[in-house]
Amino acid sequence: MLKRLTIQSRGQGLHEITSEIASVVAEAGVREALCTVFIQHTSASLTIQENADPSARRDLERWLNHLVPENDPLYTHTAEGPDDMPSHIKAILTATSLSIPVVDGRLALGTWQGIYLWEHRTQGHARRIVVHVQ
Amino acid sequence: MLKRLTIQSRGQGLHEITSEIASVVAEAGVREALCTVFIQHTSASLTIQENADPSARRDLERWLNHLVPENDPLYTHTAEGPDDMPSHIKAILTATSLSIPVVDGRLALGTWQGIYLWEHRTQGHARRIVVHVQ
Amino acid sequence: MLKRLTIQSRGQGLHEITSEIASVVAEAGVREALCTVFIQHTSASLTIQENADPSARRDLERWLNHLVPENDPLYTHTAEGPDDMPSHIKAILTATSLSIPVVDGRLALGTWQGIYLWEHRTQGHARRIVVHVQ
Repeated sequence: MLKRLTIQSRGQGLHEITSEIASVVAEAGVREALCTVFIQHTSASLTIQENADPSARRDLERWLNHLVPENDPLYTHTAEGPDDMPSHIKAILTATSLSIPVVDGRLALGTWQGIYLWEHRTQGHARRIVVHVQ
Repeated sequence: MLKRLTIQSRGQGLHEITSEIASVVAEAGVREALCTVFIQHTSASLTIQENADPSARRDLERWLNHLVPENDPLYTHTAEGPDDMPSHIKAILTATSLSIPVVDGRLALGTWQGIYLWEHRTQGHARRIVVHVQ
Repeated sequence: MLKRLTIQSRGQGLHEITSEIASVVAEAGVREALCTVFIQHTSASLTIQENADPSARRDLERWLNHLVPENDPLYTHTAEGPDDMPSHIKAILTATSLSIPVVDGRLALGTWQGIYLWEHRTQGHARRIVVHVQ
């Protein structure tokens, strides 16, 4: 089963999409399968991270912004603004695709795991995701 | 086929799990397939790296500890100790899921590739992994 | 379907392999599937990045070379030269496997996405890739 989703991000940061992906798996109606989540962009990415304490996600964002700052004189690809090149770099350091086993009809996530769309651009964007369940 | 494994890590570092994953593939008894390895944690991760010279793995650990040090004043998520937030950051920079083709009944790893569980916490933990072979 | 490819890199940098992977998908002749690309090396890796403006890829390479410089006194694994250990580090920060849904018989890449083999060694190498379409 294939499903296309469009997620509207609200600006830079981690946006949880676990329930959207779980809904696709429920709709597929399979007991054992593999669920692959793919994002069709190069300035936003995917990650699986702690879903309990929001301070962990805030620190992830701050740390990554510190590692990949805007306005680094090294960048030449700056046509779309200071958040353009850092977005591409952050995307290659995280994930474009995630594969999660489905066990007993549900995503086999750990207790503290959530699936996140990581918007790297300053502004929010409509982000296209393709979910494959087999 | 789905198999749950629990791997006891012995503290921070790369723990080879190639033989455990290869056993699951052998048990599945398939000639051509895709093997997906998924770790159900956000403070440990997966990677495929050189299995020959241990100095490469030691350098990987030292380099990552240097990039993501403990006690960075940027961290606010510190309730579980100085190794808490660095563990989450190291996890997003490496992999939560790996997919490896199965060819002629065996994992299609390169000559020098091994599969590793990367424990990012200082102490050892019982880590849960789900292996899917389809 | 499984297909082995050998890609000759021309030295350090991002080498686009989208058309090679698309050819395997076309040959498989499936409407809906999952395409997994796996690289059998630990000093080269895979990434999906912008395929339009070459300046984005040049900046990616420059940034990664700056983050992971040669001749860092931290390295002990230096037998194969100054580009040896940086190559392994760059490989763990990017991807060894990528999974891309196939929709209507074609890779469901976004408009600006290309698939790249990232050669991390200074010299070009013959790199082995396994493509699985299911």
